[in-house]
Amino acid sequence: MANSKYEYVRSFEQSDSLLPETWIVVRIDGRGFHKLSDQYEFEKPNDRRALDLMNAAAVAVMKDLPDLSIAYGVSDEYSFVFHPSCQLFERRSAKLVTTVVSSFTAAYIMQWSSFFPGKALDLAHLPTFDGRAVVYPSARILRDYMSWRQVDCHINNLFNTTFWALVLKGGLTNIEAEKELSGTVSSDKNEILFRRFGINYNNEAEIFKKGSVAYRQYQLEDPSSTAEKELEIQTNVKELSRTQQEKLRKLRRKAAVVVEHVDIIKDEFWQRRPWILSGKPGKLVTEEENN
Amino acid sequence: MANSKYEYVRSFEQSDSLLPETWIVVRIDGRGFHKLSDQYEFEKPNDRRALDLMNAAAVAVMKDLPDLSIAYGVSDEYSFVFHPSCQLFERRSAKLVTTVVSSFTAAYIMQWSSFFPGKALDLAHLPTFDGRAVVYPSARILRDYMSWRQVDCHINNLFNTTFWALVLKGGLTNIEAEKELSGTVSSDKNEILFRRFGINYNNEAEIFKKGSVAYRQYQLEDPSSTAEKELEIQTNVKELSRTQQEKLRKLRRKAAVVVEHVDIIKDEFWQRRPWILSGKPGKLVTEEENN
Amino acid sequence: MANSKYEYVRSFEQSDSLLPETWIVVRIDGRGFHKLSDQYEFEKPNDRRALDLMNAAAVAVMKDLPDLSIAYGVSDEYSFVFHPSCQLFERRSAKLVTTVVSSFTAAYIMQWSSFFPGKALDLAHLPTFDGRAVVYPSARILRDYMSWRQVDCHINNLFNTTFWALVLKGGLTNIEAEKELSGTVSSDKNEILFRRFGINYNNEAEIFKKGSVAYRQYQLEDPSSTAEKELEIQTNVKELSRTQQEKLRKLRRKAAVVVEHVDIIKDEFWQRRPWILSGKPGKLVTEEENN
Amino acid sequence: MANSKYEYVRSFEQSDSLLPETWIVVRIDGRGFHKLSDQYEFEKPNDRRALDLMNAAAVAVMKDLPDLSIAYGVSDEYSFVFHPSCQLFERRSAKLVTTVVSSFTAAYIMQWSSFFPGKALDLAHLPTFDGRAVVYPSARILRDYMSWRQVDCHINNLFNTTFWALVLKGGLTNIEAEKELSGTVSSDKNEILFRRFGINYNNEAEIFKKGSVAYRQYQLEDPSSTAEKELEIQTNVKELSRTQQEKLRKLRRKAAVVVEHVDIIKDEFWQRRPWILSGKPGKLVTEEENN
Repeated sequence: MANSKYEYVRSFEQSDSLLPETWIVVRIDGRGFHKLSDQYEFEKPNDRRALDLMNAAAVAVMKDLPDLSIAYGVSDEYSFVFHPSCQLFERRSAKLVTTVVSSFTAAYIMQWSSFFPGKALDLAHLPTFDGRAVVYPSARILRDYMSWRQVDCHINNLFNTTFWALVLKGGLTNIEAEKELSGTVSSDKNEILFRRFGINYNNEAEIFKKGSVAYRQYQLEDPSSTAEKELEIQTNVKELSRTQQEKLRKLRRKAAVVVEHVDIIKDEFWQRRPWILSGKPGKLVTEEENN
Repeated sequence: MANSKYEYVRSFEQSDSLLPETWIVVRIDGRGFHKLSDQYEFEKPNDRRALDLMNAAAVAVMKDLPDLSIAYGVSDEYSFVFHPSCQLFERRSAKLVTTVVSSFTAAYIMQWSSFFPGKALDLAHLPTFDGRAVVYPSARILRDYMSWRQVDCHINNLFNTTFWALVLKGGLTNIEAEKELSGTVSSDKNEILFRRFGINYNNEAEIFKKGSVAYRQYQLEDPSSTAEKELEIQTNVKELSRTQQEKLRKLRRKAAVVVEHVDIIKDEFWQRRPWILSGKPGKLVTEEENN
Repeated sequence: MANSKYEYVRSFEQSDSLLPETWIVVRIDGRGFHKLSDQYEFEKPNDRRALDLMNAAAVAVMKDLPDLSIAYGVSDEYSFVFHPSCQLFERRSAKLVTTVVSSFTAAYIMQWSSFFPGKALDLAHLPTFDGRAVVYPSARILRDYMSWRQVDCHINNLFNTTFWALVLKGGLTNIEAEKELSGTVSSDKNEILFRRFGINYNNEAEIFKKGSVAYRQYQLEDPSSTAEKELEIQTNVKELSRTQQEKLRKLRRKAAVVVEHVDIIKDEFWQRRPWILSGKPGKLVTEEENN
Repeated sequence: MANSKYEYVRSFEQSDSLLPETWIVVRIDGRGFHKLSDQYEFEKPNDRRALDLMNAAAVAVMKDLPDLSIAYGVSDEYSFVFHPSCQLFERRSAKLVTTVVSSFTAAYIMQWSSFFPGKALDLAHLPTFDGRAVVYPSARILRDYMSWRQVDCHINNLFNTTFWALVLKGGLTNIEAEKELSGTVSSDKNEILFRRFGINYNNEAEIFKKGSVAYRQYQLEDPSSTAEKELEIQTNVKELSRTQQEKLRKLRRKAAVVVEHVDIIKDEFWQRRPWILSGKPGKLVTEEENN
């Protein structure tokens, strides 16, 4: 065919399949959100509307891609996790990461006006996100990744809460506040908040302190029954046929996607929701139970 | 710091910098646009509003990322080209490709209502795009890539125009039309169009036959003066300092981004616009000339 | 410095570090050994001298690189396994694989004359090896890899033993033998060997039927004590400091490297030698026990 | 077949094909040659026997792999260059680099005794080499790579010559010599050599000052006839069929591989030997001309 003369250029495309039977984390980050949060006057240190919009976009992505196991968001970043058994797009890295980024961006732009009713988006200043995929070889390391993000959330939020208290309530300039906090540890910041501003950090909203975790909801299990099974979790991953994959996707679509602001570092979260690490859908929550 | 216990997970991130001094093409594709074009009732074989929206989104990306040299779009795909001297994001593949995809998606969703005024987007059926980056080691191969896409545009459009004439005007079913066209060459299809439907394919809109090319406009040059320089074009690429890069970006932002539907296979297009392959901005078009 | 003008070429070197905390298998293969075995008149179906030379070279590699956990050889291939905790050469793939290949080649050439005393090597027909590195994310999959190679050894050896019996003892041509065996299953081949040639395959040498496994010898453990620990094996891998790595290397150098021809598919091999999967040296065998 | 249960482990092998139409450089380095040169008492600053052995091994590699265009060696390193049109092993990186390393190692060990007649190799201290592959997108950059290595050769040799003169003839300790040379430029070192030791660096052997370049010899061409063609050199690379590749290999095997110690930074070397950059064999040198 006439086209063949140029078609050789396809040979420059290189394979980018991710290692089988590993956890795939696609982490996306807001591009230039520091500037963007000024442009659209986000509240400091946390803008609840912006976080709710991030979560709404993440839920849309989870619904769009039933292969996703769980997602965790903080500030303008969100981590989406595919299970080791995931075969979506033959695990091609670029395909997975761009699909997540595009789906997230589309949902974010689409729902902007619901969360920021008075503030129209400006075509020259659209919120956008970049992303990357990283693989982790075991459930233990995946959990360490999730813990890393949640610890980071805590550290940054405590800093930001104190910083903006000093600026907005204490009348300090940004530079003065920066200086004041340099070298302080957590307990110092708690002290500043409490002594100077009467703020008990423990009473801050959970969404600020813990970030947001999105996952499919099934009936919670008794932790004692799953504790000893946990280590086996990853040992029976087998490559699934296309039919099996499609069947699993259908099952997963039936589950509601929920967003919670809870501890994901300790074992309990994972033991009560064994389907996240096992990749096997649990028992659907009946409507009655839902209420 | 408390975080260090988990921070080791960063060591799993692997470098994905693209080979220096090569052309980077980020090609994006609509996800499931076959189904989507039914959902939003796109016209067959070409929906001018959909193509204009693709072009509007591409222009927004070109303005967002002044490092881009040129872009070429056909149907629901668009190829964005970074020059070999591009240092954006240290040439990290995931960063480049997700930024293009997110910027495109955001602009597409944002401008949807301008091009499809009566048709609201449905949150469960949002248009999204995936993408990938491929590098090409020389200007000659980059041009072969561009030619490949434009030849593909021609082949597909001739097929689609004939197919939909048979279906919409000829009353054939899709399967009958498919059969009718199986084994035909270009001249056969031209003949069918002309004899049965009185359509002269040459008179079809250029945007359908040639696709769309977006680039920054400077004063066109005399082809004879650039012809012999062409081969040298890539020979003086040197790594640019950050300051030089920023300066180049500013210069490029001053140029208007235009969209044309012209031949990019022959030399003339490239000889009259030497800045595309050289990476050096040309002379700005004055306003007078623009009119 | 004068050199800096050209030094930019270093920027074209791309990182090739292998994913942390995964098993690294470097498999090497003889280049053109079919032809080479004719050149040096290897015996069919198995040349014991050639296999012993492969094993001698593998032992030299194990001694050269104490980071290696285990190796498995069959015919002209050998698989060398690095533990997930291995940090050698920052886990750079090319460095690991070339070091193994070069060390193996050097030892093979060097010891040739000990195993083939009458046959001088010809400079134009030197035995050489190529290799590649593959990573596996868990001990379970690593064991499946090892089982794959040992099953392959069995299948190929049964075929070769029968094929060469038909040719050398049965007087068939290669093509006739090929035909005779086409479509046969294992029991058919056992039958042919026994009925026609009075060969009981079970009595063939273990080195031919099972291949060769090389590892560091410590005091064997009671399987019952390690059985339930096995799954935990990989859960406590932590990045080791350079000092710890050097200390481990010293410990490992003290252990003798042994070569055995035993089953590595069943659990028992691994349970009695827990140091292979755990990466922690066992108790040294005293000289008395060695005798 | 019985094997299929384990065969899934093959899916963990990842593609490592190098970008088409780029220059491939495989650079190999002696492993721990500092220690090794003590072990086998290499002469300082240069051991002619060791360099001649490196060159003999390189010639063996060039003969073993007719796809190689040129090679350049200095000290215990050697760079082997494959042409952009090379399709050997489908351009798989690990395969190319391990084949070069193994072929080099085998030839080095095999020929050791010819160059070091009195000194037997010790199995526990075998010379081995590691290697890596890097691709360069144009002939210009490939030449910059070669220039980089030759400039490095000069800089290191001037340093080493002066350093060892100070130690061996000047009676300084290593540390004193190091100190003496710290901060000196080339002219200082030339001065030290001449004033203190009566050594005119220009009279040092070319092999020490320029390193060694190995390539296939054809009839030299008139530089003036190739000068203006040079830039086009890479523009007509097309993927060659297997038959064409095999034919080219046969042609190349007919050419003698020569080793020279000449400048490869200036244009002349390349203009007189256009076959190196073009990849097209030149006219064979007749035996008469050879004499």
